[in-house]
Amino acid sequence: MNGIEIIKGGVTAPKGYKAGAVQAGIKYPKPDMAMIVSDKPAVIAGTFTRNKVQGAHIKLCRDRLVSRKAQAIVVNSGCANACVGPQGIHDAIKMAKLAGAALKINEKLVFVCSTGTIGIPLPMDKIEKGINEAAGVISVNGGDAAARAIMTTDTVDKQYAVQVMIDGLPVRVGGMAKGAGMIEPNMATMLAFMTTDASVEPKALQTCLSDSVEESFNKISVDGDQSCNDTVLFIANGSANNKMLNARHPEWPVFCDAVNAVARELALKIVRDGEGATKFVTVTVTGAVSNTQARMAARAVANSLLVKTSWFGGDPNWGRIIDAVGYSGAEMVEDQVNIRFDDLVAVKNGRKADNVDIKELEKVIAKKSFAIEVNLNLGKGKDVVYTCDCSDKYVKINAEYMT
Amino acid sequence: MNGIEIIKGGVTAPKGYKAGAVQAGIKYPKPDMAMIVSDKPAVIAGTFTRNKVQGAHIKLCRDRLVSRKAQAIVVNSGCANACVGPQGIHDAIKMAKLAGAALKINEKLVFVCSTGTIGIPLPMDKIEKGINEAAGVISVNGGDAAARAIMTTDTVDKQYAVQVMIDGLPVRVGGMAKGAGMIEPNMATMLAFMTTDASVEPKALQTCLSDSVEESFNKISVDGDQSCNDTVLFIANGSANNKMLNARHPEWPVFCDAVNAVARELALKIVRDGEGATKFVTVTVTGAVSNTQARMAARAVANSLLVKTSWFGGDPNWGRIIDAVGYSGAEMVEDQVNIRFDDLVAVKNGRKADNVDIKELEKVIAKKSFAIEVNLNLGKGKDVVYTCDCSDKYVKINAEYMT
Repeated sequence: MNGIEIIKGGVTAPKGYKAGAVQAGIKYPKPDMAMIVSDKPAVIAGTFTRNKVQGAHIKLCRDRLVSRKAQAIVVNSGCANACVGPQGIHDAIKMAKLAGAALKINEKLVFVCSTGTIGIPLPMDKIEKGINEAAGVISVNGGDAAARAIMTTDTVDKQYAVQVMIDGLPVRVGGMAKGAGMIEPNMATMLAFMTTDASVEPKALQTCLSDSVEESFNKISVDGDQSCNDTVLFIANGSANNKMLNARHPEWPVFCDAVNAVARELALKIVRDGEGATKFVTVTVTGAVSNTQARMAARAVANSLLVKTSWFGGDPNWGRIIDAVGYSGAEMVEDQVNIRFDDLVAVKNGRKADNVDIKELEKVIAKKSFAIEVNLNLGKGKDVVYTCDCSDKYVKINAEYMT
Repeated sequence: MNGIEIIKGGVTAPKGYKAGAVQAGIKYPKPDMAMIVSDKPAVIAGTFTRNKVQGAHIKLCRDRLVSRKAQAIVVNSGCANACVGPQGIHDAIKMAKLAGAALKINEKLVFVCSTGTIGIPLPMDKIEKGINEAAGVISVNGGDAAARAIMTTDTVDKQYAVQVMIDGLPVRVGGMAKGAGMIEPNMATMLAFMTTDASVEPKALQTCLSDSVEESFNKISVDGDQSCNDTVLFIANGSANNKMLNARHPEWPVFCDAVNAVARELALKIVRDGEGATKFVTVTVTGAVSNTQARMAARAVANSLLVKTSWFGGDPNWGRIIDAVGYSGAEMVEDQVNIRFDDLVAVKNGRKADNVDIKELEKVIAKKSFAIEVNLNLGKGKDVVYTCDCSDKYVKINAEYMT
């Protein structure tokens, strides 16, 4: 997109943020306690999982989001603090309190997130020690450490940052995310934290984030499992000194484009790091009677275990794709369906296209990244899901990730 | 059940049926063409996939089912005859015609089924040769051969037969089935053929079969993928000489019990032979606000890749189970949910039950067959799904099953 400059770093790329991480020893032999801190109280927006089971931190975040004010986010990996009864919210509040004290800021401005195993209470002694230590190591260079500390089954940290010009001033948006399994449209065991030094009106920040999440984190799928802890938080601290942004500001679209760029890139990084994934696949459904039906069809294809394993096997098995569309619930007429593998027409009118060369289709499927387009030829509904293949390694990872 | 005697054999266990199979060389180096033939014209009932994509044989079967009359079923494995355009139904009709001629019976009384790869036209020269040869080998001992010839990724053939007394006469119901992957409630790449020597009123036969399928083949799931070729056919030829059965016959429930027993056992055999499966799991949801919602929740658990891989890994990961219920769409209140592993209460009020011993839960999960019960404690809705775990072998099988 025009005017968007990709810059190094993540959550501390924008002005006025520090971050850091330490090893609290919760579960993994790796850093597992991260903090993101704004130099001054800031505005915050958030979106959360729609799972009816919700991690305790989500209750805390939702409550605090009412004020739309925040100064710090404290995150642990290794324990989801979910399904542990009333102790969960008690521990989440305690985490905020401890972080507030350690950082010498208003504890009500601290947001909390947890990710990891469900059903195990937080080891609060380790959490307390970790929070106190983390508060001592935060710095403007701590973004990398924080990004690594929130990882669970992730194999790489996920960060992205951009800069745009607003009111003639440089404005930055940065972010980090984690998640590799339990990833589904409507989010997953995914956490994403974004920061900006822009000055943004609170409600506008929420609208911008919600729209952005719809087009990024809500369009990815690794395994069809939707987690109870998905959270995206976005802090704006105004350090860039721009005139306060809202929908009436002439450069509002510039800011939103920057936010979209960061959210989208973080989301795609999650899919590329999908547990055991070897291929990145963009599934587009067009010609549905509505966008909702296009979404149903795209999700059915993206989540079909038979489709995903065929991709892993390098098999351009379009039969499994049309079969998945058939049971998706979306309206379809079999002999009107066309399917493309990248630019190659594989299926025309519900059957193998004339002259399609299976060897050419195999070349597409052999790529690390390719696109499947299903055109139902019934209407104007359209949607896309970014997904990955399913390998034997996915099974291995999830069979061995013990409670 | 009282009065039901399990007997040897499958589709030829009832009186007046012959079956047989040959190797037509369609795809696999194994027998792939099977026939079931009644000595005389008989009554038939059938149920089919609800997938909007449907194999050509389903169009033929639906058309012919209107008359409710049949004398033979011809089945090929290796090619699904699905998504091949108008040629599909043309070839299916040709198969019936060839079988009618070879068997010297009315071709309109021949039903046709195909299973295998989607999108490839039937090799009609091989089909023709196979049909002619199969007609020459059918015998009252041919049930085993037929059951083996319909297998694709199945590792064992699936047959079952029972005998009950009706009107003081022995009446038999037998059957065979195939299917191991692409199995989901509402059926799959599954074919099942049942026979009886009972005399049954046509409409009553259909009602009996439909009810029976609802409680058997529609309650199983291997991978959540619903196939476009699922078919269950049930022939009744009256050779037992009982008084014609219908819902007003005092021994109608005895007959239905026998049918249910065969359908249920064939369905469970499919799950036990699930591709790569190492464990058989019964997932029951109780206390839902409706049976439909119980079904949604049970299916979400049974189809969750994270749940299935945890079973494979021997991990009593109840967190993934409650998480799946949370996104199933069924109404639930987190802190009212109880979960049992066999007789052990693992979760009480949405969190780990007091005194639950993880070692005991691990012992349950280590078994080859166990039950998970989720009680939502909201109402009286209840449903069950019979399913299996997901191993790395499932991925291997489906990555290597080439188009």
